[in-house]
Amino acid sequence: MSLATVAFIGTGIMGKPMARNLLQAGYPVRAWNRSPAKAQELAAHGADILSTPALAAKGAQVLVCMLSDGPTCDEVLFGEGGAARVLAPGALVIVMSSIAVDSAVEQARQCAALGLRYLDAPVSGGERGAREASLAIMVGGEVAAFEQGREVLAAMGRPVHVGPAGTGELSKLVNQLIVASTIATVAEGLLLAERGGADPSKVHEALMGGFVDSPIWRQHGQRMLDNDFTPGGPAKWQLKDTRTALAQAQKLGLSLPVGSLVDGLFQAMIEAGDGELDHAGLIRQLRRHNQLPE
Amino acid sequence: MSLATVAFIGTGIMGKPMARNLLQAGYPVRAWNRSPAKAQELAAHGADILSTPALAAKGAQVLVCMLSDGPTCDEVLFGEGGAARVLAPGALVIVMSSIAVDSAVEQARQCAALGLRYLDAPVSGGERGAREASLAIMVGGEVAAFEQGREVLAAMGRPVHVGPAGTGELSKLVNQLIVASTIATVAEGLLLAERGGADPSKVHEALMGGFVDSPIWRQHGQRMLDNDFTPGGPAKWQLKDTRTALAQAQKLGLSLPVGSLVDGLFQAMIEAGDGELDHAGLIRQLRRHNQLPE
Repeated sequence: MSLATVAFIGTGIMGKPMARNLLQAGYPVRAWNRSPAKAQELAAHGADILSTPALAAKGAQVLVCMLSDGPTCDEVLFGEGGAARVLAPGALVIVMSSIAVDSAVEQARQCAALGLRYLDAPVSGGERGAREASLAIMVGGEVAAFEQGREVLAAMGRPVHVGPAGTGELSKLVNQLIVASTIATVAEGLLLAERGGADPSKVHEALMGGFVDSPIWRQHGQRMLDNDFTPGGPAKWQLKDTRTALAQAQKLGLSLPVGSLVDGLFQAMIEAGDGELDHAGLIRQLRRHNQLPE
Repeated sequence: MSLATVAFIGTGIMGKPMARNLLQAGYPVRAWNRSPAKAQELAAHGADILSTPALAAKGAQVLVCMLSDGPTCDEVLFGEGGAARVLAPGALVIVMSSIAVDSAVEQARQCAALGLRYLDAPVSGGERGAREASLAIMVGGEVAAFEQGREVLAAMGRPVHVGPAGTGELSKLVNQLIVASTIATVAEGLLLAERGGADPSKVHEALMGGFVDSPIWRQHGQRMLDNDFTPGGPAKWQLKDTRTALAQAQKLGLSLPVGSLVDGLFQAMIEAGDGELDHAGLIRQLRRHNQLPE
């Protein structure tokens, strides 16, 4: 059985290495990107580069969308000359961008109306995860759609089906909320170590391998120790994520006290002018909060 | 060069496997425990079992104290017939119990007055870490004392020197504070996943290997999914730890907003009667907070 032809819409920082992994797994890829130069490199790996999303979608059995936000996905998929409109009935649309839960639910509805299947499948793991095909992929949608898309997704990372349409995006929000709060507690811990006269870098080393060890302890903790907040993930994006997660919680009637507090800390950080710093720079906000030099 | 003779005071759940690892590394061990039966098993591994702390300390170059709390350590070390009083000048006292920072500083002072060296070296990693000699050991004290004790400690785990006397205990507080706050954010995340219609166990699986992955995500998260809060670490101990950490922070003039909030959540959990449950049971408090069935 020959592999499905994949239309890949959006070949930026994340999308390009993801599309390359599809090519390496043997999938025929028809790629489109707003700046064609960014797609061109994929041609050397065997991709067809098309000049519109609809041309890329033509004849594809699977369409992957990795654009920057929900409205952009909506426009490219369902707008005038939209890519979803040229797919054959039964084809699968996979939106891998991080978008609002409600947008994913609405996209699923629109796909169903066009006779298409749909998955929301945002990722975690960054550019490195995209390159190494080790992305955590949180997948929402119908079981049949997941079965249809599983192998394509597995060429880019580790897909897990978490529930109906929208729950992939919800899982991403869960991820971002826990990231934010963990950064905050790591910052508090390192500050306590420092103010109490310990060598924070030694405490950082001592606690590795223990309960608090995590990629955040290692990577964001190290940034705090180095006082180097080159992003990484800018704090302003982190605030957008916690804000969206809390809005979703509120819609569900849920109060999340720790997340809400941490959201406020990120807001204060950004108001203080640190929005472009890596989110690990939250420790600067805790220093200000305690009238300590940053 | 022959190995130092080690007096081991307190051979309970943690102390016994730690003493056994010393014996296996070739150290002569003189053990004492309040309930002699708990020490007796070590005799089969070559330990001498003595009937008082002072008898155990006699002729030892290193004394390890692994009793339940600071006042008990004080009494056994420095009280009438105390073990520290019979050590030869230059011998090393290592208190591996989790005790107050100020108690450690005071013990260091008392040891110095007796011509002894001192380390506070609390551990993280639990009974399993004790058995497998893989404990994280956070060591406070003078550099010379650390050099003197390093090999003995390395037979029980991974010692890291974090600063002067008291900072080992401080590091343990940092650890406990981050554990508490991470448990809280994991609980919030899983609750958001569940209320939003995702399968929380699938979200748990999907996020493994990503930024939020940690022993707490895996172990405490799993307890939350299983609704099984057999301790583990009871919530009442967790509250004692966060309370001590925050008191220490306050003494240093530090306000730690996330830790303070989480401390309040644990207090509410205990007031609701869940103090004997594992600290992962904090998710029940978040359910109550949201008028959800526990």
